[in-house]
Amino acid sequence: MRTDKEPIYPVEPWEVTETAFFKKETARGDNGFSAIERNNYRNETTFALSNGYIGTRGTFEEAYDFDIDTGLEGNFINGFYESGRIRYGEANFGSPLRSQSLLNLPNLKETLLYADGEQFRMDEGTVTEYARTLRMKEGTLERSLIWTSPGGRRIRIRIGRLVSFEKRHILAIRYEAEPLNFDGELTFVSRLQADVENHTRKTNPIVDYGPFGRRLEPLRLTAEERRLYYEGITKGSRLTMGCGSSHRLWLDGKPAGARESYETGELEASVSLTLAVRKGETAALEKMICYLDGEVSMRRAEELLAEAEATGYGGLKERQRACMDHFWETAGIDIEGAGADALRQGLHFNLFHIFQSAGRDGRTGMGAKGLSGEGYEGHYFWDTEMYVMPVFIYTEPGVAKALLDYRYAKLPEARDRARVLGHDKGALFPWRTINGEEASTYYPLGTAQYHINGDIAYALCLYFQVTGDVEYLKEKGAELLIETARVWADVGSFAECRGGKYCICSVTGPDEYNVLVDNNFYTNLTARENLRNASRAVRYLREHAPERMEELERRLDFSQEETVLWDRIAENMYFPYDEKRGIYPMDDGFLMRKPWDESKIPPEKRAWLYENYHPLFIMRHRMSKQADAVLGMYLYGNYFTEEEIRRNYDFYQEVTLHHSSLSTCIFGIVASGIGYREEAYRYFSQSARMDLDDYHDNFYAGIHAANMAGTWQAVINGFAGVRCQDSGLSFRPYLPEDWDAYAFCLRYRGRRLRVRIERERAEFTLLEGERIEFWINGRRAAIEQEGGSFVEAL
Amino acid sequence: MRTDKEPIYPVEPWEVTETAFFKKETARGDNGFSAIERNNYRNETTFALSNGYIGTRGTFEEAYDFDIDTGLEGNFINGFYESGRIRYGEANFGSPLRSQSLLNLPNLKETLLYADGEQFRMDEGTVTEYARTLRMKEGTLERSLIWTSPGGRRIRIRIGRLVSFEKRHILAIRYEAEPLNFDGELTFVSRLQADVENHTRKTNPIVDYGPFGRRLEPLRLTAEERRLYYEGITKGSRLTMGCGSSHRLWLDGKPAGARESYETGELEASVSLTLAVRKGETAALEKMICYLDGEVSMRRAEELLAEAEATGYGGLKERQRACMDHFWETAGIDIEGAGADALRQGLHFNLFHIFQSAGRDGRTGMGAKGLSGEGYEGHYFWDTEMYVMPVFIYTEPGVAKALLDYRYAKLPEARDRARVLGHDKGALFPWRTINGEEASTYYPLGTAQYHINGDIAYALCLYFQVTGDVEYLKEKGAELLIETARVWADVGSFAECRGGKYCICSVTGPDEYNVLVDNNFYTNLTARENLRNASRAVRYLREHAPERMEELERRLDFSQEETVLWDRIAENMYFPYDEKRGIYPMDDGFLMRKPWDESKIPPEKRAWLYENYHPLFIMRHRMSKQADAVLGMYLYGNYFTEEEIRRNYDFYQEVTLHHSSLSTCIFGIVASGIGYREEAYRYFSQSARMDLDDYHDNFYAGIHAANMAGTWQAVINGFAGVRCQDSGLSFRPYLPEDWDAYAFCLRYRGRRLRVRIERERAEFTLLEGERIEFWINGRRAAIEQEGGSFVEAL
Repeated sequence: MRTDKEPIYPVEPWEVTETAFFKKETARGDNGFSAIERNNYRNETTFALSNGYIGTRGTFEEAYDFDIDTGLEGNFINGFYESGRIRYGEANFGSPLRSQSLLNLPNLKETLLYADGEQFRMDEGTVTEYARTLRMKEGTLERSLIWTSPGGRRIRIRIGRLVSFEKRHILAIRYEAEPLNFDGELTFVSRLQADVENHTRKTNPIVDYGPFGRRLEPLRLTAEERRLYYEGITKGSRLTMGCGSSHRLWLDGKPAGARESYETGELEASVSLTLAVRKGETAALEKMICYLDGEVSMRRAEELLAEAEATGYGGLKERQRACMDHFWETAGIDIEGAGADALRQGLHFNLFHIFQSAGRDGRTGMGAKGLSGEGYEGHYFWDTEMYVMPVFIYTEPGVAKALLDYRYAKLPEARDRARVLGHDKGALFPWRTINGEEASTYYPLGTAQYHINGDIAYALCLYFQVTGDVEYLKEKGAELLIETARVWADVGSFAECRGGKYCICSVTGPDEYNVLVDNNFYTNLTARENLRNASRAVRYLREHAPERMEELERRLDFSQEETVLWDRIAENMYFPYDEKRGIYPMDDGFLMRKPWDESKIPPEKRAWLYENYHPLFIMRHRMSKQADAVLGMYLYGNYFTEEEIRRNYDFYQEVTLHHSSLSTCIFGIVASGIGYREEAYRYFSQSARMDLDDYHDNFYAGIHAANMAGTWQAVINGFAGVRCQDSGLSFRPYLPEDWDAYAFCLRYRGRRLRVRIERERAEFTLLEGERIEFWINGRRAAIEQEGGSFVEAL
Repeated sequence: MRTDKEPIYPVEPWEVTETAFFKKETARGDNGFSAIERNNYRNETTFALSNGYIGTRGTFEEAYDFDIDTGLEGNFINGFYESGRIRYGEANFGSPLRSQSLLNLPNLKETLLYADGEQFRMDEGTVTEYARTLRMKEGTLERSLIWTSPGGRRIRIRIGRLVSFEKRHILAIRYEAEPLNFDGELTFVSRLQADVENHTRKTNPIVDYGPFGRRLEPLRLTAEERRLYYEGITKGSRLTMGCGSSHRLWLDGKPAGARESYETGELEASVSLTLAVRKGETAALEKMICYLDGEVSMRRAEELLAEAEATGYGGLKERQRACMDHFWETAGIDIEGAGADALRQGLHFNLFHIFQSAGRDGRTGMGAKGLSGEGYEGHYFWDTEMYVMPVFIYTEPGVAKALLDYRYAKLPEARDRARVLGHDKGALFPWRTINGEEASTYYPLGTAQYHINGDIAYALCLYFQVTGDVEYLKEKGAELLIETARVWADVGSFAECRGGKYCICSVTGPDEYNVLVDNNFYTNLTARENLRNASRAVRYLREHAPERMEELERRLDFSQEETVLWDRIAENMYFPYDEKRGIYPMDDGFLMRKPWDESKIPPEKRAWLYENYHPLFIMRHRMSKQADAVLGMYLYGNYFTEEEIRRNYDFYQEVTLHHSSLSTCIFGIVASGIGYREEAYRYFSQSARMDLDDYHDNFYAGIHAANMAGTWQAVINGFAGVRCQDSGLSFRPYLPEDWDAYAFCLRYRGRRLRVRIERERAEFTLLEGERIEFWINGRRAAIEQEGGSFVEAL
């Protein structure tokens, strides 16, 4: 990770702007060739738009034919994947046999503009006054420029784009062209390109499975009445999708006629609209694009497009703004202070991307890369539960609930998986998946991460704690807790050689450099909590929803007796402990491993260990990729003294390489808790700018959603010290040295609380809801009514 | 493993006889369909012949077109392999990218016999007086029968076959036919079939790589002058091979003329020889077959065939018998006692197969399946060094040396592999290989078995101890020891948390159910010995061959200073120890694992855990596939008290499932040492008959060479308690209850010693060589001169 980078984009709190379009010919400064190519590829992720259903990369309407290192067109529907056969050198029992890859879908953004036959291309003629801007308050992407054609025609071009939060099927584009020095004919050619394929294999040499080649079989392709429509079915997973576009032309704000022509090939279609425009007039093409899957029909697409057309681009934009306002109102963090703009920009960028990436329909989750690229094949990991979901739980609990719904919906697959792993009862969630089945092809770093069960249980319980949604506990939560707990009760055993403590062997914790270990500290901790909470849930249901309990007992072949074992395990969970240092080693073997000598690793290989070293080399060394035990101490801090956490933090600080994007935000939070404020601030700063400045040099493949969400946590759970446990909501806030103040909002049990932290005071305002109680620095506080405030001196 | 089976073949000490040819139509008794099919498939392995260079399965000359469950034609050249690309769900750095598979080569055994146009087939007409016999004293396979054709012609047929130990390129067949009730024309059609391919993928669903399809590209195919010849090159590995056959006809012992005709296709060729034969006359076809690789030419093949023809089948058979006599003279074990015949047969069968399977040219090793089938793709494993080589060291040291030469020759590849695994110095031998490169596609059960280095060092040192061949130490041995030791000195570290002891993490020991563990007892033990012996070798060379030492220092960039670290590691090697039970757990985590509950495993899945359970399920349970710590206690018994060994044996006896064929023989040896004589005898008996009675139900895929050799060890190192350590050769013999006596020979430092153990005495006779000293039951004994004896009362 390179954290010494200059900001890539101008520092503006609410915008991210590309100020020039770079191609090979226009190298800036002394940058090398590949850096230039990567510039565009990366920016496609920066400017990716999504609404949790549709995702589209920030590619250009001109649809440049970039090579594989320069760019990647990408359009996705959340949960829409293709399968291919996976081959193994040697297959294990239970190795997934079919892949799941978020499928790259037909592109409809392509729009070519011709001025008297001259085609607008930024790599020909001259481009001036160029700006492409992600407007995070508006939820739109805008591009404006003046193009002088090789033939000398000057045109002002403005293109707006949004993926509608309100209308989940709609991506809308408004394309304006104003001749500046000529009268002539403008032609808009809008295309549908279905000759698309995934680049997974090409960009990720570590995986060797499909989908290879074009995977959608076209069922229908039409171009008529200013509409394009495509319908296809995947070859492997047999899922159907449709997409279409509709087009309306305006001249200086009035509907305009045009000469129309259509072309359809086997895999592409286009509509051309030509109109005469005079100097100073603005021609505008409004293009509505829809994507849909499942029950697909052209009629349904036409309805969706007609509905969007009726609203118009302007209307969609207004409503988009309203959605964003609603989001920022609660999720936004106001940082005051000179020089905080870069952090504010990073924060907003991160929040914007996670907000737009989360599935909201209960049948989809959120990919580790959102819907911004093909990275990790679009898979959902624990990132959702442990990093992203806390943000939503405190700010948009409806989204959090939808993500939990997704897991609940996949309980049948998780039960099947538990059987494959030899558990007679319970459910084991897959390490990576789209459709609910395990898609990890390398079990030491996949299925062995049993903690996924505990992670889901953690997020679920945090959801209950913060929202107080006991109905959800009854309806779905208890079942999730019971089924995950049952696996914990079966995976380990009480070991005589450990004083009868419960040991869990041969699992992998969060840390991906310490694989297949015994008694991973984090795993045992999260397992214990899962068991405790499952036991509590059973007690709660027995008391408050006995019928539901009975129904569960019947359906799950569950006996309340099982909680006796759970409680016994929870009371007797084993944790590796080193007396001498007073620390919890990451696992039983950690302290025995060979000391890591970074000086032996060439600098260019340091961040890419698995790409350059054999797994056995990595495993036998005493070092850590990312927060593991430290994450456990953050989540379950109530079980440890501050002094204990400090000792452990100090130890792990030395041995952690932070090669995962999931690491620094957690270290930052824990550093805050133990008074390491400078370090906390440094980690936070890295986390805030990590993707915007591409510290990991791989942003082109997609966002790092976990870290993005971790930034929010670094402020709220770190600087402001927010926790929500049995005792309720609590704060231990402080103000980072460089700032004058910061403020944020939290939703808590139907209330909305605004928190403002200054140097010497913390102010709490109850924006919505009834009387609220909370803890501030260990003391109880309350605000009696909506609008009321509470001030604590710091 | 099923050990309750009835003998498959009649019990005869020196023969194995198939008394009937079973096909689907002739089911015997109530056997099911598949059992019948397997009968032939298995017998092809039973009757496989080899000389360490050529290997040929015991298929019939009639070349029946069996389906994949019924039979597999197989002809191999040791070390001749084909490569295909290996694909991985997710590749790791250092995963082998090219496979190595012992290639199934063109078949030349095929010989069809026509009597007046009626083709001899055992599944048509009637077969009587049938016997197919492996003659282990002679080293030949013979078949005799009387066939009555559908048309009523009766012919006596006798077919002899041998793969010559003297002429490594030659496989010879003598095919006799005697009309019993007619005069007529006999036609022998001898064929060369090059349309062959490996069945690996078809028979082993766990691997998913090639070679697929026919992998030899024909370079030449001719049929002329009673000779067939083929030359081909592999598509992947680009190795060339040639094979040919020559044919001579005899009538009642005199050279006979014949009508000849030839056919050649793209991939097959044949010669037909027709002659008139009268009732009672015997026509005989002598067919010499040669295989060669490397520098291949038709001229060379013709020379080899001419040479073999000059010797004739009779001559070859005589010399074969002489080779076998020489072998049995030393390697044979005479067991006296009623009812010992079944064990003698098993022992002879096992010794015969390992004798014929070992590579002898210093550029090839010995496959775990010998050259008897495609099992394990013909790979060489540690089986050679730990199981097979001790037999050869004591009986045929020249063969042992050739096998060590092979490892020495592959040091360059082992050095490269060590670099891949992150070791700056030294050599790491591959877990499975043919060409010296790692071919294991699943590193937890492959490359992680670092003990292979220690195993090779062990065999090498045993070779020195037994042969006293110090020249070999200077020439090759020291370099092997130094290079293997260097990896041990780098793989672990002195761990503060283990009192500064040297710990080795993340390796897999011999036990394949306990994977990627810390401080595997066997590994640490064998590593310590490797380091000690390397250090000793350096001291020896410094004193006795300083120039060689200097040369090594230069060439290996080696400093004698390195031995200081080696010695320190050896002195401070860590071993897991359980105070309470007084045992050495197999590894640090073993005692923590979940107790194994066999009752939860359906019987049909018990022996096939990896086929039916996820690796994580297997790894998290406290059980063991095979001898691991117990093997260490056998090899390095001098470091442990008998009481200690007994405690450990008792413990491992409980937790070991013996799912590997490498297990029972070792348990048997250790049981002997601690006075568990009944158990030792039972294990020995199982080991002796394991393959002959197909206890593992997979003999069709090839022999279990390690267990076969382990049987010999169970007698010599078990019952007779033979060890050879620094103090010299020692015995602690006893006579198993059921026997009257047993006798065997050992080669020791140029001498040949015969040992005969009776109930109350042990007699030692020095058959060859000068004065010999040895230990018997802890007391020193000596025989002063050749022919002399020593008797010890027991």
